[in-house]
Amino acid sequence: MSALRPLLWNGWGAPDTHVELTAPFRAWLSEELGIDDLSVPSHPSLREAEITLPPSRLPESVLSALSKAAGTEDAVTAPHRRLMHAAGRSYADLVRLRENAGLAFPDAVIAPATEESFSEVFRIAQDEGIAVVPFGGGTSVVGGVEPLRGSQPYVMAVDTGHLDSISNLDETDRHVTVGGGARLMAAENWCRDHGYVIGHYPQSYEYVTVGGCAATRSAGQSSEGYGRFDDMVLGLTCLTPAGRMDMLPHPDIAAGPDLRECVLGSEGSLGIITSLTLKVHPAPRHLRYEGWLLPSFAEGVAAFQHILQTPGSCTVARLSDEEETEGLMRMGMHGSLADKAFSWYLGARGYRDGALAIVGWEESDRDELNRKSAHVASVLRDHHAIRIGERIGNSWERSRYFSPYVRDVLLDVGVMVETFETAASWSGLAALREGVLAIARENWCGNGGSVGCHVSHMYPWGASLYFTVLARRTGATAEEAVEQWKRGKVEIMEHLLENGSPPSHHHGIGADHLPWMSREVGTAGVALLAAMKASCDPHSIMNPGKLVPASERNPGSPLPQ
Amino acid sequence: MSALRPLLWNGWGAPDTHVELTAPFRAWLSEELGIDDLSVPSHPSLREAEITLPPSRLPESVLSALSKAAGTEDAVTAPHRRLMHAAGRSYADLVRLRENAGLAFPDAVIAPATEESFSEVFRIAQDEGIAVVPFGGGTSVVGGVEPLRGSQPYVMAVDTGHLDSISNLDETDRHVTVGGGARLMAAENWCRDHGYVIGHYPQSYEYVTVGGCAATRSAGQSSEGYGRFDDMVLGLTCLTPAGRMDMLPHPDIAAGPDLRECVLGSEGSLGIITSLTLKVHPAPRHLRYEGWLLPSFAEGVAAFQHILQTPGSCTVARLSDEEETEGLMRMGMHGSLADKAFSWYLGARGYRDGALAIVGWEESDRDELNRKSAHVASVLRDHHAIRIGERIGNSWERSRYFSPYVRDVLLDVGVMVETFETAASWSGLAALREGVLAIARENWCGNGGSVGCHVSHMYPWGASLYFTVLARRTGATAEEAVEQWKRGKVEIMEHLLENGSPPSHHHGIGADHLPWMSREVGTAGVALLAAMKASCDPHSIMNPGKLVPASERNPGSPLPQ
Repeated sequence: MSALRPLLWNGWGAPDTHVELTAPFRAWLSEELGIDDLSVPSHPSLREAEITLPPSRLPESVLSALSKAAGTEDAVTAPHRRLMHAAGRSYADLVRLRENAGLAFPDAVIAPATEESFSEVFRIAQDEGIAVVPFGGGTSVVGGVEPLRGSQPYVMAVDTGHLDSISNLDETDRHVTVGGGARLMAAENWCRDHGYVIGHYPQSYEYVTVGGCAATRSAGQSSEGYGRFDDMVLGLTCLTPAGRMDMLPHPDIAAGPDLRECVLGSEGSLGIITSLTLKVHPAPRHLRYEGWLLPSFAEGVAAFQHILQTPGSCTVARLSDEEETEGLMRMGMHGSLADKAFSWYLGARGYRDGALAIVGWEESDRDELNRKSAHVASVLRDHHAIRIGERIGNSWERSRYFSPYVRDVLLDVGVMVETFETAASWSGLAALREGVLAIARENWCGNGGSVGCHVSHMYPWGASLYFTVLARRTGATAEEAVEQWKRGKVEIMEHLLENGSPPSHHHGIGADHLPWMSREVGTAGVALLAAMKASCDPHSIMNPGKLVPASERNPGSPLPQ
Repeated sequence: MSALRPLLWNGWGAPDTHVELTAPFRAWLSEELGIDDLSVPSHPSLREAEITLPPSRLPESVLSALSKAAGTEDAVTAPHRRLMHAAGRSYADLVRLRENAGLAFPDAVIAPATEESFSEVFRIAQDEGIAVVPFGGGTSVVGGVEPLRGSQPYVMAVDTGHLDSISNLDETDRHVTVGGGARLMAAENWCRDHGYVIGHYPQSYEYVTVGGCAATRSAGQSSEGYGRFDDMVLGLTCLTPAGRMDMLPHPDIAAGPDLRECVLGSEGSLGIITSLTLKVHPAPRHLRYEGWLLPSFAEGVAAFQHILQTPGSCTVARLSDEEETEGLMRMGMHGSLADKAFSWYLGARGYRDGALAIVGWEESDRDELNRKSAHVASVLRDHHAIRIGERIGNSWERSRYFSPYVRDVLLDVGVMVETFETAASWSGLAALREGVLAIARENWCGNGGSVGCHVSHMYPWGASLYFTVLARRTGATAEEAVEQWKRGKVEIMEHLLENGSPPSHHHGIGADHLPWMSREVGTAGVALLAAMKASCDPHSIMNPGKLVPASERNPGSPLPQ
């Protein structure tokens, strides 16, 4: 689980990661999914050695020019590197990787180390017709790094890994300068060594790059306290095929449309974010994470709405519905919860179908923490919540990055694991959740399955909803498994858009959500995005097939509508 | 001073506004500016009846089509309306209005009442070659509503005044829906009647429209508590010549570049903001405003940096430098400060050259207010500040919108009054201020004058700097007066950009700051802005000569570089 070790080629974590499911969780899975024997890996992954890649289509002369431009020793067509850059980490990505089915591979992978190299790479790409897929941590769960060629004959992944500098922590002006390819965890650790934090903790924390967080508008688990990643960016540099754009780290500015907000969320379709100036905060000296059990999800929503609409809430706020609560408890908070707490939960005073809340405070001042936690506790108690303590809170905190590891184990035994998220106003939240749950169950859980939801990233005006689906995989082949996944996905996206909810609150659009972008932003919005793209990327080489729907204004675009 | 009465044609406030300068302020002005007799209006304004407008160049048939499209009874070429839409409220605007010199007049003024009417007006404008200047409150101080024709043969002002609906205050989701042309003060009062506030109090509060606040990225005097106006916008609708763009009021979203942030600050160059969904907050029940005197501006900056970088600060934070402090005290806090406080100040314990700070809290919870104010007081005392009390604080609060009224009186006696603002990091703030003061004094105060500065809109990473120049007007004619103003302005803008500070923190770009936009956003940034404009406004009719510098990518643009 080190940020500085490479990701597995076919899953999450480092090769020596070992994950054991708890007995109660295994029992619950068997019951919910109707999978009798969870000890048999019914759908094992291929070994890497079993995967033969098609040869690169790029001519030797171009490969050699790219190598020279990159200015590094990395072999641009090494099979392992091409495999590592063939997909992100969605369910569909993992199924296709593990079974080597339906994957596209980049014709080359290069990792320039300087802005000059990147510019030279863009020049070659434009001249030779090579689509450029910017690649950070490779953790996208929405097809954001799918090596699509668009209208170009070739495609390459351009890895930002060498842009990993972390420097200039300015204590007076409270910011730090970080290369776009720096791993988030490395940047955070570096800041901590200097007494500060960035405060961004998404589930991909260990592997994601800061440039990736910016390009996708990531949100982290302490977003109540530190905000979303797009809130954390004071300045940035984006290198586009049409030139370099610098947004200085002004305290704030009134000089037209916010071009920084055009690069944030641009998902590699405009250029590559080479450098960022991020806000930092003094490392909190006092941390507290608590578990609370509410009588129902609805009661929990009412409580958190109150908390978010009054001053002094918390740094972490997360409320699971009854289904997710049961799964989490069975999982033993990802394996590290003491049996005692689990038994206590099962026997709790009538709260058998309760909703688990995690609230956390990260403060420099102990009085501030105590005051805030007293306020939150008082609101939760008003809503009939029971405090189940810091043990569960700390267990959550320790295991907060653990879900993707568990997913790999579940894939082995034929479980489809899908997560997706959206947002809704407080008044629309309950109905949206119910609609989505019904669709997810109908489409995915016919043969057994569980769909849970939690609310996190809360605001005074609403919150994001995060859904986790565990369903019995149908179909022997990877193609069939992907088809099963896609069927439900389409229905759910339609439902979200019909009900005025966004296609994503913090995962992004990528290739997977592209068909719904024009619904979200409208015809004039699509034209505006296409115009922005045409300005920054006049030859349409940047990350084709992601984010920006085709438009008649951008006839060069290869994208289907 | 009612938001619902019209603005004077040649100044600020309603026709019956009467402003009296205090004796100490008059004495100070005489001394600083070398103007002996302030009772003689050496540079009086013309009367409205003395102004003869050139006839509209628009053919009768087009005027009649516009009238029909507007669907209202307003006379589209009435001289008073054309005069009222000829300029904003900068010093140069007022001099030109008062002396009827160098003004351009719109060929027509129309005020559609529905989105359909606006679309029809855009269609006529494109067909007939009429530049469209969106016009809200007309309070721009950067030439944002200058009726420039660009490459079009005609120009008209399109007033949003009929888009004044205020509705749907949603207490659960904490937002309100407001027409783009609604006056900010009307919207705030309406919300207050329902127990809520928007919380935006710029100096233009009484006359500005909410659409104007959004289009210019306005910031208000309680920005520490409620944020800038761009932070307050959850959703909006922008009607462009290419179509309608709706950004739904999602809690938040990760679906590409933030198109809402493209419309915010667009200054009428993309389209007209017809509707906004704004965040609201429960009306604070406890208000407190305090005056504090710091031994120096430098000490005050250190104190406020500390306050902004620790939890629990204030809703209002404002620190005047020594020069502005003296002017404010002499002015008697705009005429309403009791003599006692003034005398006290003059005799204060060695703080003769002190720096005045105003801090304010607007809270629903008294304990919260007390806690925050105790923290701020403790930091201020650590920096040797003396509390001069709520009397001065309340005086500031009562007179917070008063400066533009005073300006009219000063113009009568030949005083050039210029205000401009920028932003800097905490570490760069002192040097930037000193550089700007030196340039302002050298360029404007050779014959007498005063340049003061205050810091407001503070952030953990820096603050905005706001400068007020009072100088003796040179030149008898309006052209000469404008030339005097422009000379200093150019030098100051060059200095800001050279030192990495933005051309504006909250006034915007307009026509006045346009020459520095390409320095701020760079060549690729200009191209991106031009591409956005071309997408929304393919015939280049929208507010020409403002915000968006010309670019080879947008050959239709008439703008000089």
